[in-house]
Amino acid sequence: MSSTTASTPATLLPGLRELMDGRWASVREDVRKQLGDRRLHPDPQWDLERHRAHITDLAHELAAGGHTVHGFSADHGGSDDIGGSVTSIEMLAYADLSLMVKAGVQWGLFGGAVQALGTEEHHRKYLRDIMEMTLPGCFAMTETGHGSNVAALETTATYDVATREFVVHSPTPTARKDYIGNAARDGRMAVVFAQLITPEGGHGVHALMVPIRDEHGRAMPGVTISDCGVKAGLNGVDNGRLVFDSVRVPREALLDRYGHVDPDGSYSSPIENAQRRFFTMLGTLVRGRISVAGAAASATQSALAIAIRYGQRRRQFEAPGHDQEIVVLDYTAHQRALLPALATSYALHFAQEELVRLLHDTQSGGTQDEEIQRQLEARAAGMKAVTTGHATHTIQACRQACGGAGYLTENLLPQLKADTDVFTTFEGDNTVLLQLVAKGLLTEYRDTVGDLNSLEMFKFLAEQVVDAIAERTSARTIAQRFRDPATDDADWHHSLFADREEHLLAGAARRLRRATEDDADPFEVFNDAQDHLLAAAKAHVDRWVLESFTSALERCEEPDVVALLERVRALYALSNIEADRGWFLEHGRITAAQSKAIIGAVNDLCREVRAHADTLVDGFGIPELWLDAAILRN
Amino acid sequence: MSSTTASTPATLLPGLRELMDGRWASVREDVRKQLGDRRLHPDPQWDLERHRAHITDLAHELAAGGHTVHGFSADHGGSDDIGGSVTSIEMLAYADLSLMVKAGVQWGLFGGAVQALGTEEHHRKYLRDIMEMTLPGCFAMTETGHGSNVAALETTATYDVATREFVVHSPTPTARKDYIGNAARDGRMAVVFAQLITPEGGHGVHALMVPIRDEHGRAMPGVTISDCGVKAGLNGVDNGRLVFDSVRVPREALLDRYGHVDPDGSYSSPIENAQRRFFTMLGTLVRGRISVAGAAASATQSALAIAIRYGQRRRQFEAPGHDQEIVVLDYTAHQRALLPALATSYALHFAQEELVRLLHDTQSGGTQDEEIQRQLEARAAGMKAVTTGHATHTIQACRQACGGAGYLTENLLPQLKADTDVFTTFEGDNTVLLQLVAKGLLTEYRDTVGDLNSLEMFKFLAEQVVDAIAERTSARTIAQRFRDPATDDADWHHSLFADREEHLLAGAARRLRRATEDDADPFEVFNDAQDHLLAAAKAHVDRWVLESFTSALERCEEPDVVALLERVRALYALSNIEADRGWFLEHGRITAAQSKAIIGAVNDLCREVRAHADTLVDGFGIPELWLDAAILRN
Repeated sequence: MSSTTASTPATLLPGLRELMDGRWASVREDVRKQLGDRRLHPDPQWDLERHRAHITDLAHELAAGGHTVHGFSADHGGSDDIGGSVTSIEMLAYADLSLMVKAGVQWGLFGGAVQALGTEEHHRKYLRDIMEMTLPGCFAMTETGHGSNVAALETTATYDVATREFVVHSPTPTARKDYIGNAARDGRMAVVFAQLITPEGGHGVHALMVPIRDEHGRAMPGVTISDCGVKAGLNGVDNGRLVFDSVRVPREALLDRYGHVDPDGSYSSPIENAQRRFFTMLGTLVRGRISVAGAAASATQSALAIAIRYGQRRRQFEAPGHDQEIVVLDYTAHQRALLPALATSYALHFAQEELVRLLHDTQSGGTQDEEIQRQLEARAAGMKAVTTGHATHTIQACRQACGGAGYLTENLLPQLKADTDVFTTFEGDNTVLLQLVAKGLLTEYRDTVGDLNSLEMFKFLAEQVVDAIAERTSARTIAQRFRDPATDDADWHHSLFADREEHLLAGAARRLRRATEDDADPFEVFNDAQDHLLAAAKAHVDRWVLESFTSALERCEEPDVVALLERVRALYALSNIEADRGWFLEHGRITAAQSKAIIGAVNDLCREVRAHADTLVDGFGIPELWLDAAILRN
Repeated sequence: MSSTTASTPATLLPGLRELMDGRWASVREDVRKQLGDRRLHPDPQWDLERHRAHITDLAHELAAGGHTVHGFSADHGGSDDIGGSVTSIEMLAYADLSLMVKAGVQWGLFGGAVQALGTEEHHRKYLRDIMEMTLPGCFAMTETGHGSNVAALETTATYDVATREFVVHSPTPTARKDYIGNAARDGRMAVVFAQLITPEGGHGVHALMVPIRDEHGRAMPGVTISDCGVKAGLNGVDNGRLVFDSVRVPREALLDRYGHVDPDGSYSSPIENAQRRFFTMLGTLVRGRISVAGAAASATQSALAIAIRYGQRRRQFEAPGHDQEIVVLDYTAHQRALLPALATSYALHFAQEELVRLLHDTQSGGTQDEEIQRQLEARAAGMKAVTTGHATHTIQACRQACGGAGYLTENLLPQLKADTDVFTTFEGDNTVLLQLVAKGLLTEYRDTVGDLNSLEMFKFLAEQVVDAIAERTSARTIAQRFRDPATDDADWHHSLFADREEHLLAGAARRLRRATEDDADPFEVFNDAQDHLLAAAKAHVDRWVLESFTSALERCEEPDVVALLERVRALYALSNIEADRGWFLEHGRITAAQSKAIIGAVNDLCREVRAHADTLVDGFGIPELWLDAAILRN
């Protein structure tokens, strides 16, 4: 108890590292080799221009090193390694978050959109230049007026049959493209999302390739570019705004894999249903969301590494019978601030790897199985929300755990905090994403029922789903079994997680049924249940995260590693249950005595895990120079 | 329900503003008049030097305007208005947080130390120059090795009888003074806290006036000054580090109100007991802590004002039967993110005013009543911890509620977040402060029993306190009464808060009793109970905050204001209980049915309060230019 020297066997680390590096270990090792011997953190005194130039230079360096081809077709110089593309973004996030976002914009969002929404001609014409970054580009989706509600974008792309061109236009001030990465300084071209209009009428949101700057960096005629200015963080990325004044682009500019316009203006699509087509196109966002989840996980691990190492050096306050002041990581409150978060980071790491596998296997196979695609999207949305929420909370706690030192830029935590702060917002606001998860859970037929806010969907949900779910949750057997939570009873933890999810889901469905009543206002019914829906989604993600942890342990062949990680898993599970013990008590899932015992068990597990904190931090495999905080130097 | 137009009577605002401005309304109005017509936010592109110069200029302007005299003796040009001095700092925090901290360092900490620890000669010599800022100074307490544990500071001040001087010295690298405001650029003198050593031996920590720069701004001989560099925020304040190499100062440099050294080296003090003397000197920190609590409250109100106003303009997603997209503040999840925090800000505002009254009445009367002094210190520590914790959490939520716009500096939230981030650390780490509160609660005889870590104290506590507290909590009658929490049953809320405090306290005392067992390691006993102690302290502060809210309503003579604020108080109380419902359920204080009803009641109260959100934001009385976020402009 409260020992200050780790008692982990030294032989354990290689096995832990192997498990943590996982399937894309070679991609991780490549990035470590290319960048791991350099401290990439920006000088906090740089002005915007200098910081942006630094990041752009690094991005060119990545391209020159051939590290940007993972996600692209082998036919055009890529390596068709989708999982590798996400893993390399995760790795960049340990090095520098502006670099990660710059790379994510260029190769993930911009390049990814051309790859996913374009056809062979677009691929031939653009992909190589995108990979090499000779064509820097933007992903111009979000507008000032609409971010979460993409279907309501106002920018128009109207086909002019006479000239065989699209006219791209911002009809209102709120149609302005906003927060667009690569727009303020570097971008030459943008994938612009706009309402496609042909003589037949509107076809919903589609994407077009629109040049925004000429080779001298001047804005193209009709394109007004402005700068979002200084942000809370990520100031190495040049976010800007784009306004289009009847900008003409050729017919071929339309990325037409899912929606094509013939020279005569007739529209065709391989996907009949407009709603399904829209969601299929939005499905291109999935890789971005998974990348942000991974990046948030990496940044959180970096912050934990710094705070936990500092917590083992920093001493404060004497205690009778102890000859030195107490190491702060030996205090219960300090352990509680950091170690359940460490355990959660382990859990999320394994869940992230499982998600990347699912992404890779789904997209590599070129599967059109909608059920798998839907499951992937829901998991990506849920993981993005939960992991970025964890990042915001944990990096804050790490800053505070380092006291005044944590507030100095030389100790890296301020940059980690500032850079990650927008992660809960971009690539989908977390609240909206959790709603998406809930929606996915509540119906298996989403693409046939319209969007979440429509009356039809509520009626549909109520009719189709309620009874089925109610059946599954009839047996409330779990609370009857008495368990000692201090023992590592993983089965009990799993069943509590699963039971919470099912019960919350059934309750949400029951509440939504009210929308079918004749005098009901469907929005009010939805809104009354919104907090319930969000809780159900969170419970679903948590259950999946715990199961991913267990799957990872099953893959591991080193008994010492498994033994250690079982304690970490128990800390994750019990601290999660403890935080939500109000719910478990309210619903008779645990007794008051069990609830109190869980609090004690979390304290005990914190002490156990604390003895292995160094090993667990080393298990992240972060190059030492990327953790080069001044407080850790002597 | 979900109406978008406020239904508050227009006549209500003046009464609300009067209640909120409170006893120091004229000080508030003075600051608004002097600075309220200017947008003081820094240009985020400024480098350190420019930003620091800007803040220094503003501080000189404050001094020239005579706004810096509140806290000083009327005998020397001050106005003896202690409450006014804290209130003016609170007001500066609405305008610019670097300015608030710069002013807090110069007039609160540095000037305050001279006022409180010095004697007539020091006052005559320094106070006027301090008020006018012709003598910019530092409060050099924290060292690299010791922040929270002030008693263990390593800097020494050794009396040399031969020359009648003190030799101020930093004997180790960790003795370096660190994070010292005003040190890196402007400070000419520092109040240095050091271990006082005379030929008789050591006398513990005392404070001395040490010149650190000459009139040309050059470091004095033997003083090495360095710069803490860029911080997460507050970059208008020049934090630095001081190292002393046998720096000689005259005997008169000792601020000798509580400890005097005669020319011959003999030491005397009006306070016999060394421990009591130490705590009396540290008592000078109380005003700083109260100022930080007030400043955190102000910054939180600013963030809420921006996010709530934006939440009423921003629309996203259509709903059937609604002709426009839904205003985001009408969503339950958005209301839950902001409105319980708004209610808490109201509660903390009233508690802060009560604390400032207590400070003013205690210190103005020159009372030496130790019981009142102890109560004041405990309340200051508790309010500082709770209010700065609320600030960190709420400003984060406000950033996120504004989406991508919240991440742009032009919308002010990034600066509020970055500047306030260290508030949970400086003027006392929140964990350490809550321990101080717990300690104060557990014994009325602190100054006779030694510090929190000593074996004697634990034994003492166990013997003296356990039985007394156990008596008070014998009747567990509260849960027996069934209440409908949706009704504004303030009595029930009060009794739940009080009962939680008493029960947690009794339990903590029981656990500490184990320290009296012969084989017990007192540190382990303390550490096992640390989370319990912190919870007891938090419960104590919360109870006091709720009572302050009720006292404020009793002072108010406007029935409409009272009616509105009763709903706000209910939202504060029930959202607090909801967040802690695990505890209330575990201890049989509420039933599962009541717990679920409380969740529903919080949702209902959010909707009620949402209709008055504009009025409640206006009630803070923040000058409009200080809330001049780009997103609120058109």
